[in-house]
Amino acid sequence: MNPLVSDAFVDFLVTDVLELDALLALPAFEGHSRAETIAPWLAACRRVAREVLFPDYRTMDAEPPRFENGRVSVHPRMKHAWKELCELGVIAAGRPVEVGGQQLPLTVATVSHAYLMAGNLAAYAFAGLTTGAAHLIEAFGTDALKARFLAKLYSGEWTGTMALTEPQAGSSLADVTSRAKPTKDGHYLISGAKIFISGGDQDLTDNIVHLVLARIDGAPPGTKGISLFAVPKKREQGSTLVPNDVHVSGVIHKIGWKGLPSLALSFGDEGDCHGWLVGPEHQGLKCMFQMMNEARIMVGVNATATASVAFHESLAYARERKQGRAHGASPASAPVPLVAHADVRRMLVRQKAIVEGSLALLGVTARFADLSEHATGDDERARARLLLDLLTPIAKTFPAEKGFEANALALQLHGGYGYSSEYLPEAWLRDQKLNTIHEGTTTIQGLDLLGRKVVAGAGAALQALGEEIEQDCARATFDVSALRAVLPSVSELVATLGMRGASGDVEGMLVHSADFMDLMSTTVVAWVWVKVTAALGARTDDFAKGLHATREYWFATELPRVPELVRRCQSGERSFRDFQDGWF
Amino acid sequence: MNPLVSDAFVDFLVTDVLELDALLALPAFEGHSRAETIAPWLAACRRVAREVLFPDYRTMDAEPPRFENGRVSVHPRMKHAWKELCELGVIAAGRPVEVGGQQLPLTVATVSHAYLMAGNLAAYAFAGLTTGAAHLIEAFGTDALKARFLAKLYSGEWTGTMALTEPQAGSSLADVTSRAKPTKDGHYLISGAKIFISGGDQDLTDNIVHLVLARIDGAPPGTKGISLFAVPKKREQGSTLVPNDVHVSGVIHKIGWKGLPSLALSFGDEGDCHGWLVGPEHQGLKCMFQMMNEARIMVGVNATATASVAFHESLAYARERKQGRAHGASPASAPVPLVAHADVRRMLVRQKAIVEGSLALLGVTARFADLSEHATGDDERARARLLLDLLTPIAKTFPAEKGFEANALALQLHGGYGYSSEYLPEAWLRDQKLNTIHEGTTTIQGLDLLGRKVVAGAGAALQALGEEIEQDCARATFDVSALRAVLPSVSELVATLGMRGASGDVEGMLVHSADFMDLMSTTVVAWVWVKVTAALGARTDDFAKGLHATREYWFATELPRVPELVRRCQSGERSFRDFQDGWF
Repeated sequence: MNPLVSDAFVDFLVTDVLELDALLALPAFEGHSRAETIAPWLAACRRVAREVLFPDYRTMDAEPPRFENGRVSVHPRMKHAWKELCELGVIAAGRPVEVGGQQLPLTVATVSHAYLMAGNLAAYAFAGLTTGAAHLIEAFGTDALKARFLAKLYSGEWTGTMALTEPQAGSSLADVTSRAKPTKDGHYLISGAKIFISGGDQDLTDNIVHLVLARIDGAPPGTKGISLFAVPKKREQGSTLVPNDVHVSGVIHKIGWKGLPSLALSFGDEGDCHGWLVGPEHQGLKCMFQMMNEARIMVGVNATATASVAFHESLAYARERKQGRAHGASPASAPVPLVAHADVRRMLVRQKAIVEGSLALLGVTARFADLSEHATGDDERARARLLLDLLTPIAKTFPAEKGFEANALALQLHGGYGYSSEYLPEAWLRDQKLNTIHEGTTTIQGLDLLGRKVVAGAGAALQALGEEIEQDCARATFDVSALRAVLPSVSELVATLGMRGASGDVEGMLVHSADFMDLMSTTVVAWVWVKVTAALGARTDDFAKGLHATREYWFATELPRVPELVRRCQSGERSFRDFQDGWF
Repeated sequence: MNPLVSDAFVDFLVTDVLELDALLALPAFEGHSRAETIAPWLAACRRVAREVLFPDYRTMDAEPPRFENGRVSVHPRMKHAWKELCELGVIAAGRPVEVGGQQLPLTVATVSHAYLMAGNLAAYAFAGLTTGAAHLIEAFGTDALKARFLAKLYSGEWTGTMALTEPQAGSSLADVTSRAKPTKDGHYLISGAKIFISGGDQDLTDNIVHLVLARIDGAPPGTKGISLFAVPKKREQGSTLVPNDVHVSGVIHKIGWKGLPSLALSFGDEGDCHGWLVGPEHQGLKCMFQMMNEARIMVGVNATATASVAFHESLAYARERKQGRAHGASPASAPVPLVAHADVRRMLVRQKAIVEGSLALLGVTARFADLSEHATGDDERARARLLLDLLTPIAKTFPAEKGFEANALALQLHGGYGYSSEYLPEAWLRDQKLNTIHEGTTTIQGLDLLGRKVVAGAGAALQALGEEIEQDCARATFDVSALRAVLPSVSELVATLGMRGASGDVEGMLVHSADFMDLMSTTVVAWVWVKVTAALGARTDDFAKGLHATREYWFATELPRVPELVRRCQSGERSFRDFQDGWF
C-alpha cells in the first residue's frame, strides 16, 4: 500500500523542524494542542487520503467528467469523495472558528493537505478552489455577501471557482475584457467569456459561486481597471435558486487532473447574469492576489504531493523487482532487487531530495504565513510577511519544475512497465505538468521573484532570508560552508541586477530570471535541508542517516551549480536576448 | 503547416557539415550523386512525412490498435501509410543494391528518416523494426534463410520484430529463459514468453518474422548461452502459410507511440513453434548487438524527430499568439507575440540547441558508421569504428533525455492550451518518454559508455575523439577556448576512473556513470555545435546568425557545467552510493 507521503517525515517536520509547539503557543491557536487536535487531524487526513481518495484515483483518471446537454457530470465516485472531504472539514480547515473553520495553523493545513492531494489531486481540488473563493468573500465581501455565500461554501454545500483567464488574454490579466454594468439594484450585469475554469460546472452540489474578474463600464485600461465579482451559477429568488445566465461553452480535454473538469464559461449571454462586487471598484486584481498567493503555495503542495506518491511507488517497485546483479557477479547467482544498483539509488535519492525538500520548503513558507498573521509582535509579523512574499514564487516553482523531473524518474524506474497505463507513474507525470503552468507560469514566477520580491524594500526580504539561513547554519553540527559561501554572491548579484533595472535596462535586469529562479531555489532548498537535518540533533538512527545523506546529495550535486548560475546572471549573457525571430 | 524538421538545416548539415560529396566519392556510393539521387530521395521522404504520415498522426494516437480474438488490428489509416512507406523503399534504403536496397549512405538515411519519424513515429517504426530484423538475417543468416525471408522483409511484403525482452528479466538479457530444442529437420522448437514486442502482431501483412533470443537446451547460463532465431508467425508448408504456434498473450497499453502495438507474445504453447538459428550457437547476443547498435542510433533519431516537430509547433505558436507587452509598455498598447519575450526566446533557443545539436550529433555518428564500413583504408575504417562505438550511447541518450526536456518546453510554451489534447505537444511529450527506456535505459547507456567505450583500447577512442574535436576547433574563427579547456580534464578523469576500476573498485569507477554521460554528452554536443558553425565559413545571413547564437547559448549555459561534473566524478562522491535501503 502506497503511503502517499512519509508519515515519519511529516511528523518530524511538523513537530521538530517547524516547531509546532511554539506555533500553538500563539493566541490564535490556543484552541489547539498537539495530542488533542493536531494528531487526530493528521490521522483523519491520512485515512481519507488512503482509504477514500486514492482507491478511486485511477478510475477517475480513466473516466473524466462528461459534458452533455450543457451540463457537466463528474465521475460517480466523486460524490462519495466529496461527502468525505466535507465531513473532514477540509474546506475551512485553516479558516477561523467564527466562520465555521477549525482555525488550524496553515503550517499544519498545508502539510496535511499533501496527503489528500497525493491520494487524488483532482478530487481535492474541488475543496481547494472552494476555499480560495470563500476566503476572498470572507476577506473583501460585504456582510450581506458573506451571509449569502460563506457558510454554504465553507461547509461544501456549494463549491467555488476562480474565473480569471480569458481566451484572448491568457496570462496577461491586464487584457481582461469581461464587462460589469452597474444596476440600481446593487448588483452588476456581467458579460464575457472565461476559459480553463476548473470545477466550472459539476453535479456534486446545488450551486457554484464563481469569483470573476471583469471591468466596470468606464474603467481604466490595464490591471488598474479590473474588479472582482461573486457570480453564482444560480441566484436566489425568494427561497428558490434560479439560473443566473452562466453557461458552459466548452470543455478542455486536460491531459491530467482528470477528475476535475476544466471548462470554458460564458457569462450573460442572455443579458441576465447578476454579479456582486467583492472589494473596492477597480481593485479586483489586488484582492485576487491574496487568493493567488495562497493558491501558489497550494500549487507547490500539489506538485510535492504528486512527486511524493510517485516516489513511494517507485521505491516499493525498486525493492520488489529483482533484476541484474552486482558488477562481476556470476550469471548463475540470483538477481538482486533494483535498489541494490547504485544508479537506481541515485534516482531514488534524487526523488527523496526533491519531494522532502519541497515539503519542508512549503512547511517553512506556510509557517511564515502563520506568523505574518498571528505573531504577537508587529515587527515579527512584518518580517514574516517579507519572507512569505519572497518564498512564495519559489515554493510554487521549485516543486513544480523539479517535481516533474522526479515524476519522470519514478516512471523511468519502472522501465517498460512505467511506460504503460497498467502502472500509475505515467498518470502522475501527466498530473504534474500543469503545475508549471497554472497560477502563473514558471516564467511569470521568475519575473515576480527577480523583478519584485528580491528587490522589494531595498532588499529587506533577502536580508531577512540571509539571517534565517545563518541562524540554521549556526545550529548545524555538519559542514555548511558551501551554503554560507554562496550567500554573499547572491546578494551582490541582486544589487547588480537591481542597479541595472534602476538605470533603465529592465530587460537586462530580468533576462536571466529563469536562471535566477534556479539559483535561488537551489540555494533555498539547500538551506531547508540544513534546517531539517539540524533539527535531527544527535540522532543517528536510519531515519536520520537518510536525511543527512540526502542533504549531502543536495550539497554535492545541486548547490555547486549556483556559482556558475550567479556568474551567468551577473554577466547578462546575451545569446537568447539578442536572438531575432528571423534566425530560428 | 509544421515542417517537422528544418529543411534549411538538414540541407546544410548533409552538404556542408557532413561533407556529402566526400562521402559519395567512396566506391560504395558510386551509384549516387547529390542532384540525381540524394536530393530526390530527401524530397520524397519530406513528401511522405508531410502529406501521408503527419496528417494521420493524431487519429492514430487517439485510436490505438485493437486486440480481439487473439488478433491485433492496427489503425485503418496505417494500411495507407504502410503502402506509401514501402513504395518509398524506406525499409532497405541503407542496404546494398544486391539485396534490393538503395545503398544510400547511412548519413543520408539517418537524417532523412527523421522526417518520417517526426511525421508519425509509430507508423515509421514498423519499417524500422523490419529493417533491423532483415539486417540480422542478411548479416548472419544462412543462404537458405536469406532466400526465404530477405526479399519479403526488405520489400515490406512481410514485417519483422525484435523479441528480446522477457517479463522476469527486463533489461537483464543474461536471464533470458526462452528455450530452443534442436530437431533433426534443421529447425528448432521454440518455447517461451516475450514482452514489449513492438509490432508483434498486425493486420498489415500476411506474415511477421520475429528475431527471438532463446537458449538451446544445455546452453551455459548468462549471456554466453543465448542464441538468435528467426521465428515467423506463419511458416511455409508447400506453397501456403500455416500458423507457427506464435500467440499474442496480452497487450501493453503504452502511453505513446500509439499507432504501434506493444504485445506480450507466447511461443510454442502447442509445442509446434519452428525457429531457425541465425548466426552461431550461443552467440545470439553478439549478433543482436549489431542490430542494437543500429537501433540505438535510430532511437536517437526518434528522440530528435519527436523534439523537432514539437519545437516547430511551439515556434509557430510563439509567433502567432499575442500576449503581454514589453516591460513598461502602456497597457493601452497592443499585445506582442510571445516570441518578443526574452524568456520565451530562451525556451525556443534551448529547444533549437537540443534539436539541431542532436540531429548533427546523429549525422556525425552515422557518418562514422558509413566510414567504418566503406572507407577505403583499413586504418580509417578502424578509427571510424572506434568513434562510432564511442558515440553510439551518447547519440542514443542525449536526444532522449534532453529531448524530453525540449518536449516539455514546447508544451509549456503553449500555456494552458499545451496541457490539453486539443493541441499536439502533449502527445509528443508522451511519445518521447519511451526513448530513455527502450534499446537500453539511460542507466545502461551510461554504464556502457563509462564501463566499456571510453576505456576500450586503452583510451584509443577517446583520443580519436579529441583529435576530431581539435580539428574542428582549429577551423573555427570564433572563440572555442572553453571547449578546448575541458578536454584534458575529461581525459584525466577517464584515466582516474579506469585505474579505479582496474584496481578492483568497479562500483567506484561506475557509480557516477550518469554524471559521466551528462558531461560527455554536453562536451560532445558543444563540439558538434563548433563543427556546425565552423562549416558556415564567412556566412552572415540570418540562418548563420541563428546557428552561431545557438552555439553561443550552448557554450554559455551548458558547457560551463562540465568542470563541476568532472570534479564530482573524480571525487567519487558517495551520498547515494552509501545510501542504505533502510534509510529511505
